[in-house]
Amino acid sequence: MKSYFRTEIDALDGYTPGEQPKLRHIVKLNTNENPYPPSPRALEALHAVEPESMRRYPDPAADTLCSAIAERFGVRREQVIAGNGSDDILTMVFRGFSAPDLPVAVLEPSYSLYPVLAAMQGAPVIRIPLEGESFALPENVLEQAEGANLLAMVRPNAPTGNAFPKAAVREICAKFDGMVLVDEAYADFADDNCMDLVKEFPNLIVSRTFSKSYAFAGMRLGFAVSSPEVVAGMFKLKDSYNLDAAVQAAALAAWQDTAYLSGRVAQIRRDRESLRKSLMDMGFRVVKSQSNFLFAMPPGGDGEGYFRFLRENAVIVRYFPGPVTGRYVRITVGTPEQNAELLRFTAERFGGK
Amino acid sequence: MKSYFRTEIDALDGYTPGEQPKLRHIVKLNTNENPYPPSPRALEALHAVEPESMRRYPDPAADTLCSAIAERFGVRREQVIAGNGSDDILTMVFRGFSAPDLPVAVLEPSYSLYPVLAAMQGAPVIRIPLEGESFALPENVLEQAEGANLLAMVRPNAPTGNAFPKAAVREICAKFDGMVLVDEAYADFADDNCMDLVKEFPNLIVSRTFSKSYAFAGMRLGFAVSSPEVVAGMFKLKDSYNLDAAVQAAALAAWQDTAYLSGRVAQIRRDRESLRKSLMDMGFRVVKSQSNFLFAMPPGGDGEGYFRFLRENAVIVRYFPGPVTGRYVRITVGTPEQNAELLRFTAERFGGK
Repeated sequence: MKSYFRTEIDALDGYTPGEQPKLRHIVKLNTNENPYPPSPRALEALHAVEPESMRRYPDPAADTLCSAIAERFGVRREQVIAGNGSDDILTMVFRGFSAPDLPVAVLEPSYSLYPVLAAMQGAPVIRIPLEGESFALPENVLEQAEGANLLAMVRPNAPTGNAFPKAAVREICAKFDGMVLVDEAYADFADDNCMDLVKEFPNLIVSRTFSKSYAFAGMRLGFAVSSPEVVAGMFKLKDSYNLDAAVQAAALAAWQDTAYLSGRVAQIRRDRESLRKSLMDMGFRVVKSQSNFLFAMPPGGDGEGYFRFLRENAVIVRYFPGPVTGRYVRITVGTPEQNAELLRFTAERFGGK
Repeated sequence: MKSYFRTEIDALDGYTPGEQPKLRHIVKLNTNENPYPPSPRALEALHAVEPESMRRYPDPAADTLCSAIAERFGVRREQVIAGNGSDDILTMVFRGFSAPDLPVAVLEPSYSLYPVLAAMQGAPVIRIPLEGESFALPENVLEQAEGANLLAMVRPNAPTGNAFPKAAVREICAKFDGMVLVDEAYADFADDNCMDLVKEFPNLIVSRTFSKSYAFAGMRLGFAVSSPEVVAGMFKLKDSYNLDAAVQAAALAAWQDTAYLSGRVAQIRRDRESLRKSLMDMGFRVVKSQSNFLFAMPPGGDGEGYFRFLRENAVIVRYFPGPVTGRYVRITVGTPEQNAELLRFTAERFGGK
């Protein structure tokens, strides 16, 4: 049959999410999930959902949750919007601020979903390469981003794990003539974050997700903080009831259990440093990480070979083909046992160095 | 601050969902929720969700659920896609098939979200008025829809409740040079539906929701059935993980409990006829309904006055302003007790006829 899709959609190669193998006996370090369960209070909240909450439409604005988020960051309620995972938030941002005449600037390498979201909008993409083996923000990023209406970055960056200097983000917000999206999916694992810049710059959107630090990948909760005007516009683009009653209740419980979050995050940060050191001891180049994963180049730089070798041994990491990224793999920090398993196989191959 | 939104978004009046009052002691007959709880099996499934399912990314394709849906309708697995409520499905459809050069044809009155979704895409809207007090499909609907790339209709229609003849839908699918969306949100309450036409017409998308018949408004589950090519394109537009693990499990359990569904639907259909008769006995004009609501014009045709009167008595129905719709209110069929409450107040006002 003739296709009636918009030509952009027919031309689109859809985004490929990391694989979710259904096998039980694998060490799964490929999609930056938290290796620990979510707060027990979140589970309790989920199990306390009543038929009445299932039957009736949920709160379209997730007001209780968004108010709690606003309070913690010291912003107004109208500055917070919640989404069905941060994917939902990113969709609102790209639908709002990109179009054939409104280009998007992205860094490379970065979250590979951004160019796909831009393509859905028919928006041109300006690709700004990160510099050197430290994947640093280029000094002339503003110059390169000129003409874009939206500059999207992940901080700490994925898949590289490093965080760009906050001063540089601040300068971008101050000088860029367009919206700045700082995707803080991994910020809970970092030394600092850009949330307070929202109070200074109305053109800044900071997004967060519960998927990683709160172990909520299976439950889908993301949110964004920005100026009230920007949030109001995003709200118009949001599906009316984008969050079911169950996730609203569970996420609120997880959000309030700050002690649980801190404990898990501290553990993952410690294990990240220990895993990094072990890999470097075997001759790997490993980007200094502020996230819950490591971007690691094996000796010789055959990222794909290392990825395949691990896979044969039921250890799944993420491999991104490409001249730069193809020399690395991205390894999610797992439990100490999972990390040890990865290191055991890695030593088989590279331990003799 | 200067707005960086696309001009279409700045110009947009967002969709206004029906109100969700937080008061306890109201008779809420305004958003077509099911007055009965969902299947107890769905609640069990929700309460059986384990931390591991919360922690890990959910199945991006909701495969188990979609396979079960495909099997029941005798279509291929690749012909089914699930969404975070049917709003999510409608968003994919409008993003896929409407644009500034790809107009949308809608019926009037119909689901008021459609023109909003078209406006987000910058797509022109061709409005085709339904005919007379029976809100019939005009004979020249194809002529009026000419030039549109997408023709969107609800069957049974909302807010009017009537179902257009299936033969007319078939003829539209056969002759319309574009996609046809038949939104079957209320089909479980109707005498027939158009699902089998999907096997005949690759340009037909039939969407369904669990919100009404399965009492899942608070849980968000919709799906669409179409040709494999159309579903593949919609899949590209879908957020990767649009359905959390909890709703996937709960919806599957609800879907499989066919006896529960049939019982509740039969009850609502019976009560719908009884409520309609009672209103007509008081001089109302009530459109013959195939859904779980009634579109009812009070004697004198002051829809707004009747709406306000009920509201003062804590009975909430839906009022749609406008020269045609403003003479009516839309009343969700509730429990026998809720319906009796509505009738009691209605008799106060119109019983003396």
